[in-house]
Parts: sequence; structure tokens; C-alpha cells
Amino acid sequence: MIKAGVIGATGYAGAELCRLLLSHPQAQLTALSSVSFEGKALSEVYPAYRGLCDLTCGSADQVVDACDVIFAALPHGLSQELAAQCDAKGKVFIDLGADFRLENEEDYKQWYGGEYTDKQLHAKAVYALPELFRDQIRGKTVIANPGCYTTGVPLALAPAVKLGLVETAGIIADCKSGVTGAGRGLTQGSHYPELNEGMHPYKVAAHRHTPEIEQTLSHLAGEKVRITFVPHLLPVNRGILSTCYARLKPGVDKQQVRRAYEDFYKDEFFVRLLPDGQCADIHNIKYSNFCDVSLHIDDRTGTLIAVSAIDNMVKGAAGQAIQNMNLVFGLEETTGLTQMPPAF
Amino acid sequence: MIKAGVIGATGYAGAELCRLLLSHPQAQLTALSSVSFEGKALSEVYPAYRGLCDLTCGSADQVVDACDVIFAALPHGLSQELAAQCDAKGKVFIDLGADFRLENEEDYKQWYGGEYTDKQLHAKAVYALPELFRDQIRGKTVIANPGCYTTGVPLALAPAVKLGLVETAGIIADCKSGVTGAGRGLTQGSHYPELNEGMHPYKVAAHRHTPEIEQTLSHLAGEKVRITFVPHLLPVNRGILSTCYARLKPGVDKQQVRRAYEDFYKDEFFVRLLPDGQCADIHNIKYSNFCDVSLHIDDRTGTLIAVSAIDNMVKGAAGQAIQNMNLVFGLEETTGLTQMPPAF
Amino acid sequence: MIKAGVIGATGYAGAELCRLLLSHPQAQLTALSSVSFEGKALSEVYPAYRGLCDLTCGSADQVVDACDVIFAALPHGLSQELAAQCDAKGKVFIDLGADFRLENEEDYKQWYGGEYTDKQLHAKAVYALPELFRDQIRGKTVIANPGCYTTGVPLALAPAVKLGLVETAGIIADCKSGVTGAGRGLTQGSHYPELNEGMHPYKVAAHRHTPEIEQTLSHLAGEKVRITFVPHLLPVNRGILSTCYARLKPGVDKQQVRRAYEDFYKDEFFVRLLPDGQCADIHNIKYSNFCDVSLHIDDRTGTLIAVSAIDNMVKGAAGQAIQNMNLVFGLEETTGLTQMPPAF
Amino acid sequence: MIKAGVIGATGYAGAELCRLLLSHPQAQLTALSSVSFEGKALSEVYPAYRGLCDLTCGSADQVVDACDVIFAALPHGLSQELAAQCDAKGKVFIDLGADFRLENEEDYKQWYGGEYTDKQLHAKAVYALPELFRDQIRGKTVIANPGCYTTGVPLALAPAVKLGLVETAGIIADCKSGVTGAGRGLTQGSHYPELNEGMHPYKVAAHRHTPEIEQTLSHLAGEKVRITFVPHLLPVNRGILSTCYARLKPGVDKQQVRRAYEDFYKDEFFVRLLPDGQCADIHNIKYSNFCDVSLHIDDRTGTLIAVSAIDNMVKGAAGQAIQNMNLVFGLEETTGLTQMPPAF
Repeated sequence: MIKAGVIGATGYAGAELCRLLLSHPQAQLTALSSVSFEGKALSEVYPAYRGLCDLTCGSADQVVDACDVIFAALPHGLSQELAAQCDAKGKVFIDLGADFRLENEEDYKQWYGGEYTDKQLHAKAVYALPELFRDQIRGKTVIANPGCYTTGVPLALAPAVKLGLVETAGIIADCKSGVTGAGRGLTQGSHYPELNEGMHPYKVAAHRHTPEIEQTLSHLAGEKVRITFVPHLLPVNRGILSTCYARLKPGVDKQQVRRAYEDFYKDEFFVRLLPDGQCADIHNIKYSNFCDVSLHIDDRTGTLIAVSAIDNMVKGAAGQAIQNMNLVFGLEETTGLTQMPPAF
Repeated sequence: MIKAGVIGATGYAGAELCRLLLSHPQAQLTALSSVSFEGKALSEVYPAYRGLCDLTCGSADQVVDACDVIFAALPHGLSQELAAQCDAKGKVFIDLGADFRLENEEDYKQWYGGEYTDKQLHAKAVYALPELFRDQIRGKTVIANPGCYTTGVPLALAPAVKLGLVETAGIIADCKSGVTGAGRGLTQGSHYPELNEGMHPYKVAAHRHTPEIEQTLSHLAGEKVRITFVPHLLPVNRGILSTCYARLKPGVDKQQVRRAYEDFYKDEFFVRLLPDGQCADIHNIKYSNFCDVSLHIDDRTGTLIAVSAIDNMVKGAAGQAIQNMNLVFGLEETTGLTQMPPAF
Repeated sequence: MIKAGVIGATGYAGAELCRLLLSHPQAQLTALSSVSFEGKALSEVYPAYRGLCDLTCGSADQVVDACDVIFAALPHGLSQELAAQCDAKGKVFIDLGADFRLENEEDYKQWYGGEYTDKQLHAKAVYALPELFRDQIRGKTVIANPGCYTTGVPLALAPAVKLGLVETAGIIADCKSGVTGAGRGLTQGSHYPELNEGMHPYKVAAHRHTPEIEQTLSHLAGEKVRITFVPHLLPVNRGILSTCYARLKPGVDKQQVRRAYEDFYKDEFFVRLLPDGQCADIHNIKYSNFCDVSLHIDDRTGTLIAVSAIDNMVKGAAGQAIQNMNLVFGLEETTGLTQMPPAF
Repeated sequence: MIKAGVIGATGYAGAELCRLLLSHPQAQLTALSSVSFEGKALSEVYPAYRGLCDLTCGSADQVVDACDVIFAALPHGLSQELAAQCDAKGKVFIDLGADFRLENEEDYKQWYGGEYTDKQLHAKAVYALPELFRDQIRGKTVIANPGCYTTGVPLALAPAVKLGLVETAGIIADCKSGVTGAGRGLTQGSHYPELNEGMHPYKVAAHRHTPEIEQTLSHLAGEKVRITFVPHLLPVNRGILSTCYARLKPGVDKQQVRRAYEDFYKDEFFVRLLPDGQCADIHNIKYSNFCDVSLHIDDRTGTLIAVSAIDNMVKGAAGQAIQNMNLVFGLEETTGLTQMPPAF
């Protein structure tokens, strides 16, 4: 059994990691930490967990010492030191924050306002979106787990971009996210009466996930890609729907696009390419690690509309982190992640 | 007092017309009809109305005879005959359906599968989006009230398109609608457990509002405009958020766009142009005839992102129909439509 | 025109007062105050109000000076001084807080922990639930506006209790409230992801509205009444459903109960007694001042089940306050309060 | 591996059975049937299941022949014949419908309008609420799985009733259910715009679960118990909250009640007795087989308020059915049912 620990266990991503690790057949949730709730049981913070996870939150140091793999679910800027500590002790470090995601330190400075204090460590890190970069992840020990939008958008577009079926200029990602993505912290925007029956965009063309999506698409395209990215806040708990628009290159037709996607994802358990005529819906992937993708062509304007649906807390955070753990530890990649999305 | 009647009063748009007409100071809700509920009081169908509107549903003929203005809220294809009847009797006919909206009969054939049986009547009709076509509406008696998406999208884009600030090729309208837009009829998609906590696109690049939006934008641009239009279904009752993307023409900057919108809408009571930094939200226009518009520029890609929020049942249907009635009868355009959107 | 002012205008009850006063034909919203947002326009706090209420929040003193009637929507304990100030200046004071509601100071001490600093002022105050105590309200200038549960429960039970149709021992009020009742302040319990898809009781048999409900029922019964009161939090914005249980006295039958209610409420515009077979639903009274009441008899156990539905922000707060203003100023009691509840 | 089959697999309870059986380590979902969708894959009806359960729906006969245990999720009246068929072939039959739940045929006639065609078969059946009747279930092959309300209410009250701590006269169960309890069939009441933001009771003191709850409580009390039972419809997908009121017998105090519950449930994995001061919440048991119970005493009126929360589709239907399967087949009772309720 792999001894797994979660730092920042009482935030939403941390709590979801705990839920998933507890049903993992080859990992044991061994230690938790939380700055806000040190000394409290996780089930005091989340009564849903009572009787199934009554572990008490300790310190980050305790987690590092007790575990083989350490998941960090922290605000950005706090992971670098922790990663170094894990690295020094030979532990696997899986970061759900943003500190190791951007290869170009300039991007990090511009969008996050920090810098890379330990460049060697950054060089050891890998950006770990398994469906796209599986081969580079194996054997690594500093794992940058992607963000939520940055999983959904690339998975919607990857085959088209990689195979050059669409123009890389003018790509638009219009994304709609459930509110758990904003975390457990209280804000006026997530106060029930003000979000309920509402819907609005936020951080329009200014969200920090922009350079991360562009980094992935640029790797796939083999050239620098810029996109327009607009996230919206949905009055639902979970799920990100990404409606992505890209101009088809001249001569590319519907069948060609479909075949490309079928081929690209044919061995991917977690990507479900929907049949023609169906639309991806966050309703169908909740609480699971699936990414549903539907394809639509607007013949009148020559536009590919690729839509993906993920659970922001699972495939967009904790589930993918466990998928990466499986990869790193040489387990079957789907281990502990085959939960069926409920039908309702 | 204008005697107003509603045909199709028990559908959602019809019921909303009744609610708004009942608080109109210069109109009197005089007669209702409903095929499904003939002989029943409206308040039996909608108990919310008990004590305030206990009118009984009669036949369409009764409504036409009793009223000065007849609002029809019917499935498409049923309005043409009714319009002819009203026209013959010198009544004002305001159609909330699609039968008179498309100027080009070919478009109607292609998207709705019907034809224009009385071309003279169609020639008398006017497409009545007051903020854009006010001058053509006055004096008319066959009024084609716009649809919901077809109000929200043009109001988001009109100043930019009219003034040539954006390329007319490649415009994308990503719209999110509350479920009342789908009406009172029962469907699996509007069954509570299947819509709740869900979100998905539908009729992707194939929705009948496409040619209607294009018709309006083409008039504004003075050239044929094609757009990519993708509607989504939201788990809320009311509201349409339209996130519209258009490439800025070279040299157009943020200030220029803002000034154009400010100028274009400076006398429009129902269009609220939000200050820089705010985002349109359906939460803020519910139960009102307002259209909130927010402007965003993506400098990195040269894209205008114009977002509008309307209540699909008010500005997107019944409210705008009353606004048109006011126009046609020479009343102050805002009469009976100054309800304040609740803060929550 | 009555000059009306709102102290505590940026809380939920205050904001709702502003919305309703702005559509009142014989009152003018003249001045606002807010401690948290002094100097800000109300529409900055609630963008829904933009263009319709851009009044700036000033100080409480400014409101008192500028207005004929002052509504206070403040946390308990803050109204006593304000009431004295209004009284001294000959202004009408309508308190939406709890400071003047309990006739027995001991109750106030026990449940709120404060005391009555100015007993003379308390002697001038009147508990103002118009349908039950109308005659005592006219001519008063210190008005204690009832709370939300304390409106819904008595209106469900009043005829039965007043006419002695039920035992006054063993009455149970199981109430379900929308979350606006908890106000604008942020709490974990009103954080969207934690309330959404949830439902739980709170302050079980320990809610401060208990003595207030008992005071009203005791007046009606002519004897001391104690009840069991359990409030629950609903994942909706507005509305309180009160399901009230009382044992029928021997020999009392269904027809007798129905006739009693019909007679008791026959002249009450705001109380809608539903026909047999229908159930009160918060869906049908939203945004209105109505109280829907449905009656049910459990013959098997001899129990009256009386259910009421009110909008907690309107009949349960701001609407009733305006109803009281109308009464005090000699206006038609329904003035400005005939908004139709939307059907959806 | 136990071969398990589901008859009525495309209804909500049937679909939930499939979800849970697919993660059961000692059962294999072997065959499905559906009258409405025969010949279709379950994943065509519920796209959430794509890739994990693409079994095709066949006939009921095929299910009976292929399986060791047959779960029936059918409207009442259809199970008797099926049970006989299973009995004749030596198969275990677990009925999620009502046909075998009531011991007294007169109750069945009165509340359901049918009769018991095969009295011998009824004699073999057992009412299977494991926490209360475990010993009688083992060894049986015709299993009447309780309904949803009829699980939640008895689990809230059992210790108090069994141990005689409360009066059995005057018990009130005020229950609030998520809408999946009403099933997949379309109704106006579950049409999204009409349920959303609503809340109302239904079948007040007239719901068919009344005699079933009374049967269980009567067994516990050792005397005939009658209750007042009022169900309400909640705008959430899952969960039943049961707020149960019973008068404490003279001299019974809080500690006594608490100890009784602690003792009664000390070995029950699925019943989580919450600490004093916490309240049961459907938010905390979603998608799990748990029943959370909180206890509250109203000292002022001598009332026990016991509140339970279950997921109506799991502990209130499919999960409990699998718990019964485990019991019947001699497996650990929790097998396949230890899913953690998500924290949000």
C-alpha cells in the first residue's frame, strides 16, 4: 500500500483527495494537514465524512514524514518549499497548485506575480496531463497537476490542434464552471442568494489559466498558440463545460475531424467521445474522472465546436492527481478512479 | 385604456404577458384564450395569480373581438391566419412567435419548414426590436416581436457592428438560457432531476434563431453577416446570458469601443451599459425589461467580448411585446415596464 | 407624498424595502443609510438597482431628518435609541428588528439578552401584524414589524386558535425558510456549495421567534400558549413554508374549520385561503405580499394541518412594513403592494 | 460472484441499483430489463453510464433466468407474479415496490386498491429494514424492501418507541424529499421551472407510506401506533429529511434518550448518531447508504425531536436492497456500500 498524505486537506480539493484516496485499493490515506484546522478531525469540518475518515489534521511536516506521496492543495506560492522538502527526502510530490505548471518563469511572473526560487527543482518537475503527456510523467517525482479549465479545454481541442485540422489563431474557449472551483473561502459571489439563479462571466480574458492552456496547446501545435479564454460561474456545485471554437482549415470535413478524435482517444479510458448528435453535459460526469467530449461542425462558417465536460474537483483536480500517482507508482492508471457518475 | 388580449395565455410567454399587462397603467387585460385550458381560469393553471387574475380562458375569436391589441404566444405556424383576422378587423397584432420575423421567405422555409401564405400581410409586418428599429415600428399594426436570443445577441453587438468596429466574419455568440425558454411543455430535458446540477449546449450551430440574429446584424452592418451561434441550457428559471466574440478591426481600441456603446445607448432606458470592470449577470435583470451589457477587450488576441443579460421572458418575450404595444399606441415606451429587478 | 427613509438599506430587508418603496405611488424613497457602505450608492452594492435607485447611503441622522417615516432594518439592540430619536422629532418609526416586538421584557432578556432602556417608549409601541391586530395599529407611531416565521405561523393558525377549534397544548410549527432570511452576511452555512442540494433544521426548539409566536397565539387564545417550533433552511432564495400541527378539539370537523377560516379571512386581501385539495407553495407567493394558506385534516389522528406560505422578505419583512406604513398614514392598506407573484 | 439482475432498470431506482451493483465486489450485474426501453442499452437512457454499463435491456424473463438474485423496481401491483416466478425457480427476489410490504392485506386494499393474489407467497415474504428486523431477514428469499419515508421515519424514532420513552399517540412525521423520489416520469410538478425555488407539502396525511410506517412503529411499540405523516417536495435531487415529533413520557430526560439511541445503534454501521448540537442534513449523506440521526429535546414542551437524513435512492431504495442482498447471501452487510458521501 502506498502511504498517501494530503497537505491542505480541509480545502475543497484536499477534501476531495481524501474522499478518493479512501476508496483507492492500493493507497492508504495516512496523514493530513491543515493550517486552519490543525488538531481537528477532517470529519468535524466535513460531517459527510463522519465514521469513514476521522483522521486528525496535523502539520505539513508530519505529512511529509509519514507518507510516500504527498499531495499539496494549497494557494499558489506555497508549494515550492514543500516540493524541495519532499525532494530532499525522496518522496513523490504532487502539486495541485500552480507553482510548477508554467515552464516559462516569465509567464509565472506575469500572471502570478512570483518567481521560481529553485530552478533546478522546476527543471525536475513535469506538467502532468496524462492523456497528452503520459510518457514524460513516468519516473518523475515532482508532479504539476493541471488546473481545471486547463484540463477541460486542451482535452476538447487536442486532436484537432495536434493534427493541424484547425487554425491556431482565433481559438475561443468559453467555459462554465461550478462554484466549488472557487473553493471553501467565503465570498459575496458564492453567497447562496447572490449566485443562485444567476450566471455571469468573470476575469474575462484575464484568468490565470490562460497561459497554462496556451502552453499545452502550443506543445500540441508545435507553434506558439494564443487563445481567448472567458470563464463563467454557474449555479451548480461541480462541473466545467468548455465550449471551444476553432476555424477549420480549408478542406477539412466532419468525417476527418471525427476520425481524428476517435483515433486520438481510442485507448483513453477517461475520455468518452460522444456519438454524433449528443452534447457533452456536466450532469453526466459528476463525481467521476471522466471527460466527455462532443464534436460539432458549423458548416455555414467553417467552425469546429468541441465541447468537453469534466468534474472540476475530480478530473480537474483530485482525480487527475490520483491518476498521476498511479502513473508514477506504476499502477494501472485507472486504479481507484472507476467510480460511476450517478445518473442524477 | 387599451383593451389587451392574449392568445395562448397559458403558455409561459402568455402567462408572463398577463402578469405584466395587469400592472400596466394604460392597458387592461380584457380577454384570454387557450386551446389546452379553454373554460378554465388562468389562476387554476397558475395558482400564483389567484385573486389577481381569475379571468377565464375563452377562444381566440373571443379575444380578437374583445380587444384593441392582440398578443399571440403560439407555436410557429399558427399566427399567420390570426394576423390576417386581426388585420381585417383593424386590430393591432403583436406576434411573439416566429411567423413574421424573417424577411426572407427562403430562410423561413429552410429553418421552419413552412411558407408565407399571405405575402401582402408579411409586407405589412415589421420586425420590432425597438432599440434598433424604433422608427420603423411606429404606425405599424402587424408586429413581429423578436425571440429571446435574437434580442440578447444583437443588443450586445449592435454598436460595434453598426459602426464597423469589428470584423463581421467570425462572430461567435455563446448563449446560456434559463429553462423557461423551453416552455411549459414537459420534456426529459426539463425534468428537474436531469437538468438540476447540469449544463450542456443544444442545437449546436443549428438553432432557428440563427437566421434571425443574422438578419438583424446584416441590417446593422449593411452587408450579409453570418455567425456561429451555440445556445446552452442553464439550471435556472430565467435569463439569457450572451457572450459574444468579434475580432476588432485593426487600430480600434478600448476607448473607441466604449464611447461607441455609450453614444449608441445613451437614450435607451432599457439598456444598461455597465462600467468597466463589471460583468453582466442574469441575476441583476430578472423579472425586468432591462438588458445589461458589459464590454471586455482581449488585447492579446484583438477580440471584443460583449456580454448581454436579459430576462428571456421579459425583454426576450412579453416585456418587449408590451414595449412594442407602447410604441404602436403612442405611449411612453417604458409605460408599465419599470419594475425593479429584485436584488435577490 | 410620504417621505420614506431606510436605515440599514444595504442589508437584505433594507434593500427589499427600497425596491418596494420605489414602486409605491404615495411614498417617495428619500434617504438611505448604511454603516458598512456609507457614501456608496445602493446600486453599487446591488447592481440590479442600477438606473432605478442610485441614491447614496448617508448616516442614520440624515435619514431621520429628511423623512416622515423611518424604516429600520438593523440587528437587534440598535433600534431603541433610534426609535427615541424619531419619537422626539415626531416621526413615524417602523422597526423591522426585534427590539419592540416582545411585550414582556423578561422574554426579551431571556431570548435576546438585552433590556428595555426606555420603558415609556415600549409602552407606545405596537406589535403590528395587521391581519390580527389592525385596530391597535392605527394611530401609533412606534411600530414593531413582526419577523418572518412570526408572521407565517400565526396566520396559519389564527382562526383555529382564536375560535377555540384546537387544543392549544401540543402545537407544532415545522417551518422551512429560504436563505435570504439569514441575511447578506457571509457564513459557511450559506456558502453555495454547502447549502445547495442540502436541507437541515437549525436552532431546533431554540429559535428567538418562539416567544414572539407564542405571544401572538396567546393573545388569540386568551391563555398562555406554548409551541414547539423547528425552523429548517431551504436551498431557495425566498419563501417560508410553515406546516403547523394542532389537535382538533372533540367534535370539530372539517367543514367547521373551513368555515371558520373563510369567515376570518374573508376581507383580507393578502391572505389567500386555497380551495380544498390544494397545498400552499412558496413558489406561488414569491416577490409578493400574499400569505397563502391551505387546510388539511388528518381524520385518523384528529389533527389540523394548516400550511402557510409567505415571501420572507415581503410579507415576512419589507412588504408588511409598508402595509403598516399604509395603515398608520391612513392609506388603502394594499397601496404599493399589489405586485403579482410571478408564475415561475 | 452473485449474478444480479434488475427488472425495471431504466427507472430511477433501477438505474441506481445498476450503479451500486457495478461497484459491488461480490456481485455481477448480469441482466437488465425495461418495458419502455427493451433493446436499448442502459447507457443510451443514462449517458452518465457510458463505457461502464452498456448492458442492453431485455425482458423480465431473461433476467429471471440469468440471475441468482432479481431486484424488481416496478410500479406497485406488478411484483406479485414476478415473485411467484422467482420463487418457483429458486431465485432470491428483492422487491423495491410495495406489493409485499404490508402484512395486513386490508391495509393494502385500502391504500393501494389491490389484493394479495398468492397468500402463501406473502407468508414467505419478509419486511426487510435490516437495522430493525435483521434476524427475520436471514434465510428469506422474498424480500420486501422498505420505501424511502418508511426507512427514514422509523430509524429516527425506533429507539424511543421501542424503549417506551415517548407516547405513541400524537407522533408527527414532517418529511421533506428530493424530487427523484417521484421518479423519471414527467409531471408538471417536477418540471424544472415549477419546482425550482418552490416548496410545498403533498398528499397531506394521505400518503401510502403511512400504514407502512405505522406497521413498523407498531412492531417496535408492541401496540397499534397511528401517526400523522406529511411529506413535502424539495427542490433538490436526492435526500429525505424526516423531522419527527413525539411527546416524552413523564420523567424521561435528555440523557436517557441519548443513551438509548447510542445503545440501540452502537453496532449499526449505516446509522450515524450525530453529537449533541449537530443537526442531520441531507447534504451529508448524498450518494451513500448512511442514515444520519440527530436528537433534540424541547424542554419547554416535553417533546423529542428526532431528525433523520437519508439518500432516498440509496438507503431509501437501491442501497438498502443491496444491504438486504448481502444479508440474504451471508455476505458482510456493508459489502459494496461503503461509498463515502461527497463533502459537496
